[in-house]
Amino acid sequence: MGILGKNTALSQLLATHAAALATAERLDVAALTGGIDAGRMVLLANPAHLCVIPTVVGQPATIKVNANIGTSVLINDVKMEMQKLRLAQKAGAHTVMDLSTAGDLHAIRKEIIAASELPIGTVPLYGLAQKYVARGQDPSDFSVEEFLEEIARQAEEGVDFMTLHCGVTARGAAMAQGGRRVLGIVSRGGSILARWMKRRGAENPLLERFDDVLDICLRHNVTISLGDGLRPGAGADAGDGAQWEEVVTLGELTLRAWERGVQIMIEGPGHVPLHLVQSQIEGIKRLTHHAPLYVLGPLTTDCAPGYDHIAGAIGGALAATYGADFLCYLTPAEHLTLPGPEDVWAGVKASLVAAQSAETALGRPHAVARDRAISEARAKLDWEAMAQVAIDPQMLHKRREHHRDERECAMCGTFCAIRMVTGIDDAPVPARGGKKG
Amino acid sequence: MGILGKNTALSQLLATHAAALATAERLDVAALTGGIDAGRMVLLANPAHLCVIPTVVGQPATIKVNANIGTSVLINDVKMEMQKLRLAQKAGAHTVMDLSTAGDLHAIRKEIIAASELPIGTVPLYGLAQKYVARGQDPSDFSVEEFLEEIARQAEEGVDFMTLHCGVTARGAAMAQGGRRVLGIVSRGGSILARWMKRRGAENPLLERFDDVLDICLRHNVTISLGDGLRPGAGADAGDGAQWEEVVTLGELTLRAWERGVQIMIEGPGHVPLHLVQSQIEGIKRLTHHAPLYVLGPLTTDCAPGYDHIAGAIGGALAATYGADFLCYLTPAEHLTLPGPEDVWAGVKASLVAAQSAETALGRPHAVARDRAISEARAKLDWEAMAQVAIDPQMLHKRREHHRDERECAMCGTFCAIRMVTGIDDAPVPARGGKKG
Repeated sequence: MGILGKNTALSQLLATHAAALATAERLDVAALTGGIDAGRMVLLANPAHLCVIPTVVGQPATIKVNANIGTSVLINDVKMEMQKLRLAQKAGAHTVMDLSTAGDLHAIRKEIIAASELPIGTVPLYGLAQKYVARGQDPSDFSVEEFLEEIARQAEEGVDFMTLHCGVTARGAAMAQGGRRVLGIVSRGGSILARWMKRRGAENPLLERFDDVLDICLRHNVTISLGDGLRPGAGADAGDGAQWEEVVTLGELTLRAWERGVQIMIEGPGHVPLHLVQSQIEGIKRLTHHAPLYVLGPLTTDCAPGYDHIAGAIGGALAATYGADFLCYLTPAEHLTLPGPEDVWAGVKASLVAAQSAETALGRPHAVARDRAISEARAKLDWEAMAQVAIDPQMLHKRREHHRDERECAMCGTFCAIRMVTGIDDAPVPARGGKKG
Repeated sequence: MGILGKNTALSQLLATHAAALATAERLDVAALTGGIDAGRMVLLANPAHLCVIPTVVGQPATIKVNANIGTSVLINDVKMEMQKLRLAQKAGAHTVMDLSTAGDLHAIRKEIIAASELPIGTVPLYGLAQKYVARGQDPSDFSVEEFLEEIARQAEEGVDFMTLHCGVTARGAAMAQGGRRVLGIVSRGGSILARWMKRRGAENPLLERFDDVLDICLRHNVTISLGDGLRPGAGADAGDGAQWEEVVTLGELTLRAWERGVQIMIEGPGHVPLHLVQSQIEGIKRLTHHAPLYVLGPLTTDCAPGYDHIAGAIGGALAATYGADFLCYLTPAEHLTLPGPEDVWAGVKASLVAAQSAETALGRPHAVARDRAISEARAKLDWEAMAQVAIDPQMLHKRREHHRDERECAMCGTFCAIRMVTGIDDAPVPARGGKKG
């Protein structure tokens, strides 16, 4: 007996949506249902999120892309965050995480959930810590009971998936901060929990009360995204003891969650040099029993601020080829400032380039066909057909606005290689007034 | 006896520059000289290009990046091209190719060579074909003698490296156009030569007169960049018979060039799905006797117009990790229009992200140290030190202009993970008015 028999909300969702989801994912219903039952896929949908599009994460379902939005103390503009939400969906993101850390977090979250058809993820710890920060207190002043209340509250509000850093053990946190790392702990949630533990000399409250967490999440079919609070924040730290200590713990927690019928995703790195991406992804997938893997990049170099969406696309394309299921976008603002609307668009598109590259590499028929379709349109210099399958159809119109009447592009003009050797227009070359070849 | 004993101009250049080049490339002089002598590295520098910085291409020398500039019929603005030249150098490109196909090509080239410290590459066929296009004639009306004259003229003008599509055989061109490819021939030079051969029922003039080409190039130490006129222009075409037929020919020509003392680079794909990048690069390097490999991307998906610099960075990072030596940039304008100045900047930076990712993966000490240096600066929230080793130092200032006084970034603000668990500022968290933890 797998997850479905223990998770009533999930079973009911699947009873309604399995056929449509299977069609959309180009899987047969048994493969989809079996994958979810075994935990290799998750269905993101909290029944309390009334307008949500239930979304499957886990290969061979298509690779999904998440966009992070949310206020921060230095840039706190809810209107802009709502614009970013709309843009993320328009750009093609499949989920959105509200990572707000400033303002009335409850009100912001409520507005986002109501406005979003995409599944919404959160990091409940932020809401908790922010209360104390707002009062001028220490962000780790909260009690474990308050933490559970915050999780329950957000579950009731309709949050579809939550990052919970249950695997940051006191041992792991100590290893990460023992001086051997270039950058000890770079996860916000991980660092607050490490602080909480250190101040009290106690173990991770989410780990200690994991059964209570599971109870809450089961009730609302909240998918737990087991956070990687000790992920490497520098390429030099990738693959160290602290990282794997946490992954081992996440694997144990995955089995406990499945036993209770709770859906699980695993969060992954982070900063990983290119030559280590394969072993990282394969190692994490193995240790976490092939639960869906949700990666943040990974960034294949540390020194590309302003271009982290590109460094992340390099790592993300490789990671997804080796088994990662879900790409958290990185925007050009990463490591610098809060992303603006243009950053959101750029971040989603970069992740979609990575996902498409991986799916083509994996031979997924829809991805291979899509690459082929745009190339066939190119052979005919059919710009409209190219736009239909392009990752950003608007881009074709935008970049060619002064040349819409031209069959060729302004890059090659009459030197168009395609026209040079084909019979397009019956007057192959030159395009303007020349004699026929 | 290798290349040096036969190439006087090259030997003289090395006598002057070997020590400085070796220092800059962090190689010992014997490794550098031996690599150039054996053809595994090339030294780009035509003695007639008086202001040129002699530039080594070929691993373990650092991976180099080329930026293409040049006019086209639809956007013909020499002033903008000169701006693009300056921006390319400022952004960190190591070479520039002038691919102009409109206007007074001779005058444009002369201006670019005089203004550029970076080695300049060209495709002499463009200058030749453009004369006929300008007169309303067929671009393939030129004779082989005219072709050789054009090469000689450009060599005398100081062009440092030339793309010459010597390996496009009549057989290969026929295979590429036989209907099995989605996109037959996408190389402009390759398509003009295919047209030339088809109209005359003749073999490739550059192949037939290869010895004459070598004579010219030897005289001026012009490095021949053996063009991949039959490179795949769609992922679906990667690795087909036409592509490898040309690579095999390029390998034969490489040996002939080395025998005469002429420096050779090999141009590579193009459009290659991610899972084929390794076998493509390793196969091409083997068949072309480990001559420096100069790749255009490769693009790991076809459907990313507007984001081809990202698709190209994915493929380029992998290609360089597997042995490619020289990355030709792709800009956001690729497949759409002529790149503008902002595209040039974005294209160079994306290629530098790919190069840095590859060099870190390869364990090159300078690249590993650079990643480590920016991470160490992050641990101290030292923004100035980050900028010093960042791929785009200006970006840090630009994106943080409203937050320069802040130690933390506007993304996390008081939720800065680094401050959460370290003693920075002696008042770790919260940053504003809170009590100490």
